[in-house]
Amino acid sequence: MAPPRQVFVAIIGVGGVGKAFLGQLSQLAQRMSQNPSQPMYISLILLASSKKLLLSPNYHHLNLSTCASDLQSSTTTPMSPAEIAQYLEKAPEKTILIDNTSNQDIADAYPTFLAKGINVVTPNKKAFSSSLALWKEIFSAASNGTGSGGWVFHESSCGAGLPVISTLKELVETGDEVTRIEGVFSGTMSFLFNSFMPVGGGGGQFSAEVKKAKELGYTEPDPRDDLNGLDVARKLTILARMVGLDVESATSFPVQSLIPKELESCSSGDEFLEKLPQFDGQMDKTKEEAAKEGKVVRFVGSIDVAKKGVKVGLEKFDASHPIAALKGSDNIISFYTKRYGDNPLIIQGAGAGGEVTAMGVTGDLIKVLRLLHVQARRMSVVGRTD
Amino acid sequence: MAPPRQVFVAIIGVGGVGKAFLGQLSQLAQRMSQNPSQPMYISLILLASSKKLLLSPNYHHLNLSTCASDLQSSTTTPMSPAEIAQYLEKAPEKTILIDNTSNQDIADAYPTFLAKGINVVTPNKKAFSSSLALWKEIFSAASNGTGSGGWVFHESSCGAGLPVISTLKELVETGDEVTRIEGVFSGTMSFLFNSFMPVGGGGGQFSAEVKKAKELGYTEPDPRDDLNGLDVARKLTILARMVGLDVESATSFPVQSLIPKELESCSSGDEFLEKLPQFDGQMDKTKEEAAKEGKVVRFVGSIDVAKKGVKVGLEKFDASHPIAALKGSDNIISFYTKRYGDNPLIIQGAGAGGEVTAMGVTGDLIKVLRLLHVQARRMSVVGRTD
Repeated sequence: MAPPRQVFVAIIGVGGVGKAFLGQLSQLAQRMSQNPSQPMYISLILLASSKKLLLSPNYHHLNLSTCASDLQSSTTTPMSPAEIAQYLEKAPEKTILIDNTSNQDIADAYPTFLAKGINVVTPNKKAFSSSLALWKEIFSAASNGTGSGGWVFHESSCGAGLPVISTLKELVETGDEVTRIEGVFSGTMSFLFNSFMPVGGGGGQFSAEVKKAKELGYTEPDPRDDLNGLDVARKLTILARMVGLDVESATSFPVQSLIPKELESCSSGDEFLEKLPQFDGQMDKTKEEAAKEGKVVRFVGSIDVAKKGVKVGLEKFDASHPIAALKGSDNIISFYTKRYGDNPLIIQGAGAGGEVTAMGVTGDLIKVLRLLHVQARRMSVVGRTD
Repeated sequence: MAPPRQVFVAIIGVGGVGKAFLGQLSQLAQRMSQNPSQPMYISLILLASSKKLLLSPNYHHLNLSTCASDLQSSTTTPMSPAEIAQYLEKAPEKTILIDNTSNQDIADAYPTFLAKGINVVTPNKKAFSSSLALWKEIFSAASNGTGSGGWVFHESSCGAGLPVISTLKELVETGDEVTRIEGVFSGTMSFLFNSFMPVGGGGGQFSAEVKKAKELGYTEPDPRDDLNGLDVARKLTILARMVGLDVESATSFPVQSLIPKELESCSSGDEFLEKLPQFDGQMDKTKEEAAKEGKVVRFVGSIDVAKKGVKVGLEKFDASHPIAALKGSDNIISFYTKRYGDNPLIIQGAGAGGEVTAMGVTGDLIKVLRLLHVQARRMSVVGRTD
């Protein structure tokens, strides 16, 4: 049996996902310390928000239960991603960076982190849906790409904690031929259209549903950040790249925005919400057309692998289609493949929310810990008997 | 970069799943040999059916493309599981046993294999759904249990290649609280009831649907092996144990058999099929009762975690329920958890068939290879620089 071994963890981001993750990490650390067969313990050595930094300069572990409040009272000067990478590189044990932000600058530094042997776990979509060059740099540095650096896992970058990324990865790695991916990839859009046009009729005016969604906390502070379709486009970019399509960026394929052109220039989300009812007629027309065909309207993303076609926007579905039957703010993702034939492999459930998103991050962290644990054990065996 | 490294693979079972797996393994080995960043290659050193054995006594690799036919013409005396374990233990590199059988004797030997450091990958339900003692022995020996032996992965023991085992494992490991699991776990039962009582009315006599299912190859050679519910009970046993319930065996909870008592003693599947129409009245009555309530009948399994209740049998569902809307021979598994709230995490798709079952095995093999690859790399790094 190997001796207990420390793994250093640095966390950036203490928003909704970040806070939920800290809670899950505390519990995980506690369970690991109670498990005699897991000779490894987690030491938090850095916690950062966009403005604050809590740092352990000598790599002593920070207190997991008080770190969130300690961060608030910290007066340490924030560090750049490059400085964080240097700090982690000098750590005396293996390190894992958990990026719970949606920050582009941190994402841009992933190749640097990975090349230095730092493992990266993140729900940050920007790292995998910005330029194709960044995607290629990340996976040519990472051990689970073609490189020999750190491992990178990003389950929660699509569908939150739902096993979307891992399932698609397994389909591809085991040699199945993915022909088509289709689904509802946004909890906000799911809620909006399940309310706006429920199966069986009814539903309110579109602008009223947007307002309700905002009040319930289902939208971004400015609902236009959901309605522009970019969030869905980013997720589709990630999945398309995973099946081998060289998608240049999240704006290099057709994405339908639900923001009326006239309201793109509104100075605030509030002004936008106030003026949106003037455009309900357009959405009513879309709804009526679908109803005439006995269908409902949903905001979906799809990838046609053979045609290399990626698109995001409104589509009509029969009432009996699984996409039409979705409830609440659930996501649904259907993978059509050669092995699965006519009936796709379907994953469905909550695709947004702090706890389920953090769960995907925690799950990835466990995968990295398992890989590091094997390294630790192997080294110990080598040291003693080889 | 580490030097290329060999991993030895032994395969037992060349039935439907075994044959499909051999095809997938050939392709995987080819892809690995073309990938310069994967310094590891797979060597098949043993292939066995229940009656034949193809063996490489000096651990030289067998020919993957001809091994299936070479096995048929082999006259080597078969080996017992204990003999296979001894042979693999002496191999000069890491070994993986792929058990593509549903054989109890091989399952009983897993603790021996694992304790010797041999990794085990399998769709064999019997290993995980027989006595609780065997389950405990397996996971106290395995590295992904509380032991330090080989790794054991068994994704295809429930829902074939669908990510059922891995998803449940992640829910549990990340600290979510699973409250209920419910679903259609048998492709045969799914097909039977989707045909017998489709949503919207219609459907044939139950006995006729059973006959049709057998003709289409959806049932075991003797359909009673599906209709007794034991296959579903075995899958429920595995999932229940994964969420911490000490289920003694697959017959220690209520399992409804669809075999009329009078036909249990039929001497053959053919005699059974001939006499089954006499009992159609019972199933018609069940169907009518459900129809009166506007529901359909489905054969499902469920686990109520708080009540420690596991059961398998017929239940009624609203036409709008995802279980009612299932198509063909698809499986559906719903995980209700604290984090996911009212709307469960749902996995749906083909839960039987050679290729998709083999896919789960290939996916597990890749996981083990990744863990062994890390060991290999670490050792090389230690040897050169530590």
